[in-house]
Amino acid sequence: MASVAPEVEKKEEEEQVVNPWEVSAGKGGIDYDKLVDQFGCQRLDAPLIDRIARLTGRPPHRFLRRGLFFAHRDLNEILDIYEKGDKFYLYTGRGPSSEALHLGHLVPFMFTKYLQDAFKVPLVIQLTDDEKFLWKNLTVEESKRLARENAKDIIACGFDVERTFIFSDFNFVGGAFYENMVKVARCVTYNKVVGIFGFTPEDHIGKISFPPVQAVPSFPSSFPKHFSGNDQLRCLIPCAIDQDPYFRMTRDVAPRIGYQKPALIESRFFPALQGENTKMSASDPNSAIYVTDSTKYIKTKVNKYAFSGGQDSVELHRKLGANLEVDVSIKYLNFFLEDDDELERIKKAYKEGRMLTGEVKQLLVTVLSEMVERHKRARARVTEEMVDAFMAVRPLPNMFG
Amino acid sequence: MASVAPEVEKKEEEEQVVNPWEVSAGKGGIDYDKLVDQFGCQRLDAPLIDRIARLTGRPPHRFLRRGLFFAHRDLNEILDIYEKGDKFYLYTGRGPSSEALHLGHLVPFMFTKYLQDAFKVPLVIQLTDDEKFLWKNLTVEESKRLARENAKDIIACGFDVERTFIFSDFNFVGGAFYENMVKVARCVTYNKVVGIFGFTPEDHIGKISFPPVQAVPSFPSSFPKHFSGNDQLRCLIPCAIDQDPYFRMTRDVAPRIGYQKPALIESRFFPALQGENTKMSASDPNSAIYVTDSTKYIKTKVNKYAFSGGQDSVELHRKLGANLEVDVSIKYLNFFLEDDDELERIKKAYKEGRMLTGEVKQLLVTVLSEMVERHKRARARVTEEMVDAFMAVRPLPNMFG
Repeated sequence: MASVAPEVEKKEEEEQVVNPWEVSAGKGGIDYDKLVDQFGCQRLDAPLIDRIARLTGRPPHRFLRRGLFFAHRDLNEILDIYEKGDKFYLYTGRGPSSEALHLGHLVPFMFTKYLQDAFKVPLVIQLTDDEKFLWKNLTVEESKRLARENAKDIIACGFDVERTFIFSDFNFVGGAFYENMVKVARCVTYNKVVGIFGFTPEDHIGKISFPPVQAVPSFPSSFPKHFSGNDQLRCLIPCAIDQDPYFRMTRDVAPRIGYQKPALIESRFFPALQGENTKMSASDPNSAIYVTDSTKYIKTKVNKYAFSGGQDSVELHRKLGANLEVDVSIKYLNFFLEDDDELERIKKAYKEGRMLTGEVKQLLVTVLSEMVERHKRARARVTEEMVDAFMAVRPLPNMFG
Repeated sequence: MASVAPEVEKKEEEEQVVNPWEVSAGKGGIDYDKLVDQFGCQRLDAPLIDRIARLTGRPPHRFLRRGLFFAHRDLNEILDIYEKGDKFYLYTGRGPSSEALHLGHLVPFMFTKYLQDAFKVPLVIQLTDDEKFLWKNLTVEESKRLARENAKDIIACGFDVERTFIFSDFNFVGGAFYENMVKVARCVTYNKVVGIFGFTPEDHIGKISFPPVQAVPSFPSSFPKHFSGNDQLRCLIPCAIDQDPYFRMTRDVAPRIGYQKPALIESRFFPALQGENTKMSASDPNSAIYVTDSTKYIKTKVNKYAFSGGQDSVELHRKLGANLEVDVSIKYLNFFLEDDDELERIKKAYKEGRMLTGEVKQLLVTVLSEMVERHKRARARVTEEMVDAFMAVRPLPNMFG
């Protein structure tokens, strides 16, 4: 999987392009409404969020309350199943292309942890080290090493080892998983993957071969140790909307090979410090906050690089107030500040010019530093043995317990 | 792998087409000389055959003596290695698309057994059940079942269990094998496989994904249990010439990923009973002799269907003699009658009209019946435990012993 924070290119006057490897915004940033219509997914509306809250008996996650997870496919069916007392499982993943995660990478895992806790369901996490080998100039060994390092950050998010299986493709592809890959591949033409993913004839066949690898964790029969005899178990996939093409393909194929379609719950992209139309890039450490950054570095990055919607002078700001639509600090607080009332107070005061950019940034630095320090402490407690435990191919007898 | 006996279509006035799934002869049958030049492989000439005999201290196999294995790639390098006392391994395979093998299917295995005995080297045999699932309308289960049934016929050819590993792709793909598949796939573009294999954009991506699966048994690192620490061990592949495209691709990729190129020794096609320009087809049981056929059925098939180069009347035959170039009984004897002198006597007498087609066919029926009965007895002795033993993923401590 690609991260929740793909490289966003601004293309003036051009069509937006969103696929797992490229996100090009048209003028004015990503048009998510257009994307929902174009992809054919459904909007995650207030009644559905209320239903989640009612069924799980807990308040909806802030990512839901604030429309950050904003689209879905068949989520209502998953809730029907849950309401009847039946089971489902969660599937998410990560393409391990970097040593340290940034905050955007944490978003789907934070949300997946909430779903696991709220629904008490098993979870499979795919680390697509093969994908990163195929797309980036990495060795197999380096891709596998990054997968294991990233697994530590994922484990640090607090997943339940009795309900969670983390796997690297290089280590896990084979057997029933490979059978499903081949079944999917037989149902998808080259023309089809060109249409879905934009491959060209000069692309290597590794890229063309990859989509089935990301498709098949959607099918419980790919995990015979975990879901044996439960081949019609439904799957819910929390991911960023750029991953939708994989699962459109998967949902198209599923009924043709006798499987259930996976359901999806899909998020917006996490913006770069410089704003929604710029790239959050591994080659520019100042474009993102990493989970390894010191508090001092976070402060520097936020103060220096977080794009401000405030006015050029204090006088003007007091008079006109901030433009919240483009202000990155507000966007980040929207993701990470838990308290809705406080967030509303800040937004109102900032918009009306009563708060200055510097004050908002100072709050943001506090929120991010606390979160990053908490993550660092959790990650420091993740041992090699814990990684082995999460990645062991083993039955999970208490996964629905 | 496809069989040594692909479906041969006669295309008048057209270019011959030879790839793993299609063999179309031009007018006058397959032009093997042209094929060698077109593919860029080397001719297996008398000095090379003499060298094999000298190095192994045994007469060359009749398939070598009679030019049935007629082409190679880097066989001289394999012999250099052997002469220096170094090691290599053999790799061959079969696509399990039918329940019973016909005689053409046996050819590469008979020859591979000779090579294993003569050089005392390990052998890996790939059963491409995934390929047959992808190309034929079979289920995964049926493809796997046919692989296991075919393994019994292969074992009946007399391979040494201490030196032989037989594997089904569906069961074995994974780990180091999958890593090598992905490494190969990254080196081959879609345009390249279109050029080599003739895929079209309407072909499914399973086909496009498959060539690396057949490529990687050429690399010892794909078998860590067998060849661990021996990653530069050379590989020799006995196969029919229609498999050359796979290994041209493999040889092109090998040095780019730090591996040795596999060497090849390549055979002509085994003809259908109706002649070299007709199809040996599973849907027409009268086009081939199967290893399950009764002596009576073999007699009927040979007498009724084996294309004759004899003349229309006995009188004319006594006068003009037979055309050996098109006579299928002679072609079959060329493959299976061990005694060179007897074969020459028959050919001479038949050519000069002193022997009639019926007499040659009677001889052929005896040779084939004995061979088929011997195979049946050997296959009846193959137990499920023996299949398990050959297919177990295990070290082979005596493989070079």
